[in-house]
Amino acid sequence: MAQGTRIVIVGGVAAGMSAASQARRRKPDATVTVFERGPYISYGSCGMPYNIEDPERSIDDLVVLTPEKARESRGIDLHLRHEVTAIDPGSRTVTVRDLEAGSERTEGWDALVIATGASAVRLPLPGFDLPGVTVLRELTDGALVKRLLAEGRKAAAIVGGGYIGMEMAHVLTSRGLRVTVLEKLPDILPGWGPETVALVRKELERNGVDVRTGVSVTGAEAGPDGSVAAVTTDAGPVEADLVLQAVGARPNVRLAAEAGLRIGDTGAIWVNQYQQTSADGIWAAGDCAEAYHRVLRRNAWIPLGTTANKQGRIAGANVVGAAQRFAGIVGTSGFKVFDLEVARSGLGFDQAKAEGFEPVAVTITQRSRAHGYPGGSPIQVTLVADEPTGVLLGGELAGRDGAALRANVLGTALAAHMTVSDLQGLDLVYAPPFAPVWDPVLVAANQLAKKVGRR
Amino acid sequence: MAQGTRIVIVGGVAAGMSAASQARRRKPDATVTVFERGPYISYGSCGMPYNIEDPERSIDDLVVLTPEKARESRGIDLHLRHEVTAIDPGSRTVTVRDLEAGSERTEGWDALVIATGASAVRLPLPGFDLPGVTVLRELTDGALVKRLLAEGRKAAAIVGGGYIGMEMAHVLTSRGLRVTVLEKLPDILPGWGPETVALVRKELERNGVDVRTGVSVTGAEAGPDGSVAAVTTDAGPVEADLVLQAVGARPNVRLAAEAGLRIGDTGAIWVNQYQQTSADGIWAAGDCAEAYHRVLRRNAWIPLGTTANKQGRIAGANVVGAAQRFAGIVGTSGFKVFDLEVARSGLGFDQAKAEGFEPVAVTITQRSRAHGYPGGSPIQVTLVADEPTGVLLGGELAGRDGAALRANVLGTALAAHMTVSDLQGLDLVYAPPFAPVWDPVLVAANQLAKKVGRR
Repeated sequence: MAQGTRIVIVGGVAAGMSAASQARRRKPDATVTVFERGPYISYGSCGMPYNIEDPERSIDDLVVLTPEKARESRGIDLHLRHEVTAIDPGSRTVTVRDLEAGSERTEGWDALVIATGASAVRLPLPGFDLPGVTVLRELTDGALVKRLLAEGRKAAAIVGGGYIGMEMAHVLTSRGLRVTVLEKLPDILPGWGPETVALVRKELERNGVDVRTGVSVTGAEAGPDGSVAAVTTDAGPVEADLVLQAVGARPNVRLAAEAGLRIGDTGAIWVNQYQQTSADGIWAAGDCAEAYHRVLRRNAWIPLGTTANKQGRIAGANVVGAAQRFAGIVGTSGFKVFDLEVARSGLGFDQAKAEGFEPVAVTITQRSRAHGYPGGSPIQVTLVADEPTGVLLGGELAGRDGAALRANVLGTALAAHMTVSDLQGLDLVYAPPFAPVWDPVLVAANQLAKKVGRR
Repeated sequence: MAQGTRIVIVGGVAAGMSAASQARRRKPDATVTVFERGPYISYGSCGMPYNIEDPERSIDDLVVLTPEKARESRGIDLHLRHEVTAIDPGSRTVTVRDLEAGSERTEGWDALVIATGASAVRLPLPGFDLPGVTVLRELTDGALVKRLLAEGRKAAAIVGGGYIGMEMAHVLTSRGLRVTVLEKLPDILPGWGPETVALVRKELERNGVDVRTGVSVTGAEAGPDGSVAAVTTDAGPVEADLVLQAVGARPNVRLAAEAGLRIGDTGAIWVNQYQQTSADGIWAAGDCAEAYHRVLRRNAWIPLGTTANKQGRIAGANVVGAAQRFAGIVGTSGFKVFDLEVARSGLGFDQAKAEGFEPVAVTITQRSRAHGYPGGSPIQVTLVADEPTGVLLGGELAGRDGAALRANVLGTALAAHMTVSDLQGLDLVYAPPFAPVWDPVLVAANQLAKKVGRR
């Protein structure tokens, strides 16, 4: 690529700023321009619940890289409050709107990275436009929730029993609110195994959270001050002066779709392992893009900050001539709800079945540390494998001590396509402060081994 | 194998009792006889330091399975204080001495498992037979140390700066003793990387332990009461009314060697992956036996409880007709010294070099949890890889939060013979309570990637 290369990056959060930094580092003479629609760059949105928990912390603490540092020490040509409204792959230009000035201009590029992220789903329900009803996705959402809490909200309704709902149930309870979780499905945490779900539900209820499942939310109603006062449901009203919609996100693909780029079956931008889109000279990375799933052996869409950072870094290297490959994801994720660590990797039983595997599963409970060592507590492990081949498909862990980090054993084993027998043979760290002589993961593997490959 | 099979197991600690239990479970009509020289079976010797730390706990708490339970619920024909003094592979008999009665008898077997463990090295120095000088290997050693502490010992000298020395420095300090660690080599923790060693040394010194390296112990001297009062060294005397020799262990192979079984280059009993020794009908497992090392691709001797349990279970299955394979070890181990978790897997830089690899290494420090999340602290990660191939060879971690469990990522990656590039691509759990967006292991892998495969 010639000197003076113009690289344009659409979006300045995790993937976009990773790409920009990597491109500049590898090719200091390139012009790297980032257009970010919002007022912030490079923030850790996954940290928002924990930031909200602490009234003393500013939401700005979540900003990893300031605009000044991006510009000065990294040499990135950064434009906040600038929205790219169109991409023309033919002429290699973008149309950019300066949201402050209200003006629009056209910018050329030699290489383009789309890192437009995802947006929280907002339910199109009556009253869901009332003050006090929000989502939690961008830093501005987090700032709003903190302001509402500072005003003294008393009762929260969380619509959606996924992991953001779980984290926020914990956070809002610890901020002193009464919290109701409303999930329309028969149970919370759709896609997780029933044994894990039961532990999470118990932890929520033990901490006073009112968990209502099989309940459809129909709208929201205002109080005398014009702010939200209740959520209405098919099972009656729920008092709430703070309503959080946590019903998932969708990839921001409008720009890419209008430019004629291939959108994958998942609804996110199709990319190959080099983060290239279907259009020459255009890469995509982060929550707007698909990722190759190593267990499914096809692209999937599981938006997470860690994937966004990895993909962004690779896209940034590749736009300046590298040929790095993104290895893919295996579906590792985790959250903490009150004192319970919960994490997974790979496929759950139901998903494995739906994908055409012949899954078998076990659930065991084993202590986190050696018998008698202080600080230990039970860890529940569920493992799923393909019965005919014995290949590990996934697993879930829940416990108060060392449950989440153990999911990394599964994540690593899944990347290597290990069988249950391979898992049994792993040499894991053993010392009384860290694990019993049979680590919970090995205990589960020993049990699951009895169920696989017996034909 | 015919009904009425007689299985004899020599040794009733981790490997021996695992083998006995597994054999009985798989073949309930077999006669499974265990001869254990000592007064205890099935104890977790790795838990001894932590048990000693707590004066309220009985050393018997470390017994996992009581003789009564072994006999009654597991149906094992168990003989404590019975020492096997000879094995005759030709006639398939053992000679057994009843240490209480002083009598000797001969017992026949169809299958034999040798699980004789290892013994602590005792230094042949003048005065090292004094009361108050001990090792820490068997439960009776732990009981002795607890009794000495209950008597009110004031100053301990620990001879040897390996991991048992580290654990006991912590334990004896917390029991109120002044502790001096004496290591004859230039630094503690031989075989570990200098960056890890520096952190451990700092942690010891921060907690008041006097660490003296490059010092040769020459003997011990008694006080007026006839018990030890000082250790003598080439750098002067060290006051100590409790002296712990922690200078390693040796496999108990005399029986096997006298029976003509092959002893490996490591000095331990040679076994294949089925735990078979060189003699037909005889298996070996645990600290007396070698284990296949998956990074070295040859047998090694790294005695650890977790390996003993795995090998014992496999030997117990195979003596009753199964054909299970022990996958091997990768050299994973860990310990805690004061508040510092320390763990490793695979080879260190120097060992890798000595083994003919062309190692490169990096050491990085990264926080254990996301920026701003409470409870996080730095983790230091050292990774070693083979430069021409990029294959991961090993790594070490040290930190106060989540360092040890992260060694399992390395243990799993080493089992799969992953490269540094494979490690960079791992999908590890990310959520602010558990990890930053780039886990410390990934940060290290990203740095090491710049040093490998550049030819």
